[in-house]
Amino acid sequence: MSDAPVFTHRFRVAFADTDLAGIVHFSNFFRYMENAEHEFIRSLGFSIHPEGSGATDLEVFPGFGWPRISATCDYKQPLRFEEELNVELYIREVDRKTIRYGFHFLQDGASQPSAVGELKVICVIFDEASKRMRATDIPDGIRERVEAARSAI
Amino acid sequence: MSDAPVFTHRFRVAFADTDLAGIVHFSNFFRYMENAEHEFIRSLGFSIHPEGSGATDLEVFPGFGWPRISATCDYKQPLRFEEELNVELYIREVDRKTIRYGFHFLQDGASQPSAVGELKVICVIFDEASKRMRATDIPDGIRERVEAARSAI
Amino acid sequence: MSDAPVFTHRFRVAFADTDLAGIVHFSNFFRYMENAEHEFIRSLGFSIHPEGSGATDLEVFPGFGWPRISATCDYKQPLRFEEELNVELYIREVDRKTIRYGFHFLQDGASQPSAVGELKVICVIFDEASKRMRATDIPDGIRERVEAARSAI
Amino acid sequence: MSDAPVFTHRFRVAFADTDLAGIVHFSNFFRYMENAEHEFIRSLGFSIHPEGSGATDLEVFPGFGWPRISATCDYKQPLRFEEELNVELYIREVDRKTIRYGFHFLQDGASQPSAVGELKVICVIFDEASKRMRATDIPDGIRERVEAARSAI
Repeated sequence: MSDAPVFTHRFRVAFADTDLAGIVHFSNFFRYMENAEHEFIRSLGFSIHPEGSGATDLEVFPGFGWPRISATCDYKQPLRFEEELNVELYIREVDRKTIRYGFHFLQDGASQPSAVGELKVICVIFDEASKRMRATDIPDGIRERVEAARSAI
Repeated sequence: MSDAPVFTHRFRVAFADTDLAGIVHFSNFFRYMENAEHEFIRSLGFSIHPEGSGATDLEVFPGFGWPRISATCDYKQPLRFEEELNVELYIREVDRKTIRYGFHFLQDGASQPSAVGELKVICVIFDEASKRMRATDIPDGIRERVEAARSAI
Repeated sequence: MSDAPVFTHRFRVAFADTDLAGIVHFSNFFRYMENAEHEFIRSLGFSIHPEGSGATDLEVFPGFGWPRISATCDYKQPLRFEEELNVELYIREVDRKTIRYGFHFLQDGASQPSAVGELKVICVIFDEASKRMRATDIPDGIRERVEAARSAI
Repeated sequence: MSDAPVFTHRFRVAFADTDLAGIVHFSNFFRYMENAEHEFIRSLGFSIHPEGSGATDLEVFPGFGWPRISATCDYKQPLRFEEELNVELYIREVDRKTIRYGFHFLQDGASQPSAVGELKVICVIFDEASKRMRATDIPDGIRERVEAARSAI
């Protein structure tokens, strides 16, 4: 197992993602990271949020959710309207209840990432009695697929 | 009853609301209209979406929701970063199940609106059996307050 | 020339596009329509906004811009997280200075659109003297390609 | 000089800021932080982005911009639709070219912040020759007011 990305998400910058400085607003990098994470999860065959999903071909884990407990991004180069680029997803750490993802924003032809970020997410289950979410162990079916994706690199 | 606005919502344009043309992205006018609508509803003492509300001083109508059935906007003048302006809310029509709101975006000192829009919303109730929303009559407690606001002008 | 769509844009609903009602926020339909419009323009070989473009393989029309003068949407069925669907783009009218686009949101397997919208856009040129945009005739190079796309159906 | 906040920004959570989990989408905390930063800058009498500003009563520093070089957020408690809360702004560090802001999201009655974040911003000037932004020393007029705000606590 090397430190290679486990997944690459390609996307195009939308007009509405830019701001008056003419570049992508910094908050949208976090949306792009989440999109890459969800695309990765779909590539494993399941949905991050089964109840609300409109995709019918994905396995569901009813009651489970994945709130973010931290998010960071370092910005090196701006992104511009309608450029296409890759977000590389790394799995930095898998704990009993949490996963820490790393992300590299790679513009075509660039040797260095334009931005580097992280999302730490925690597995929760909705508790019917208290009507609240509480942290819980990542279900085996999910953990195994995430670990397998990491080992396969 | 005249054709005066029943409510005025004042707000300031955020940086993230602009796009690379240097002006507010056209989709954000719809968010501004909705914000004005919700502020108006709060001014009547209740919340548009009780289950999800974080405001504890508002009356709730459990199970009721207000999806939009149509939205329109005509754009006359651009809005710029950090300007403060008014959105005037008009009640164009109250039907058994629907309300049609009109909105005028008024920049300070302007004689004509910079944008004019409408939202038509429908009252729905969540049906436990089918797990779906279905259209329903606007509850009397809401209808009376909306009509009273209109008559008070 | 029939009344068929000139272009179809396929996309997947992102998590951040949903709201607490569990469905896509109504303002995001306008972003989706604009994304379809820009994808259509790219399919003709040019960029809607050359100065800010990060795509290097597109023809540019320096100084020209395309602000929206009106936008409408009628909502029939909600869209859900991570469903994939088509936005069909129609060209309703091409005038000297304006284009009116129509959009049908078509969920897979649906016989009727989930939403129907329109965007009317106007061709402007940036005036160096006044530092303002003013309406201008659509450049022939653009008009011809748009008309050709419409005639080709 | 204590470690007290130099500024407090109060705001209300908008409907469009929530996601299908029923809480504020994590990316919006970054917009809220930026809004607090810009409100703080306005409280000092100037605008963060003079060219695009629609506020006429603010001092401008033509050509200067403030891109973000890093952004972080730790999430402790979710925020809900239409709750009103405070974002406290701290000045963590002022360097020759950069400012590091800290932010505490404080719900009414809470003893601990619901979220804690940071934005590090860098002062740039637009270079006419290269058409690019380059890092530059923070203008004295801005530095003095930021330092004075910090010393005044």
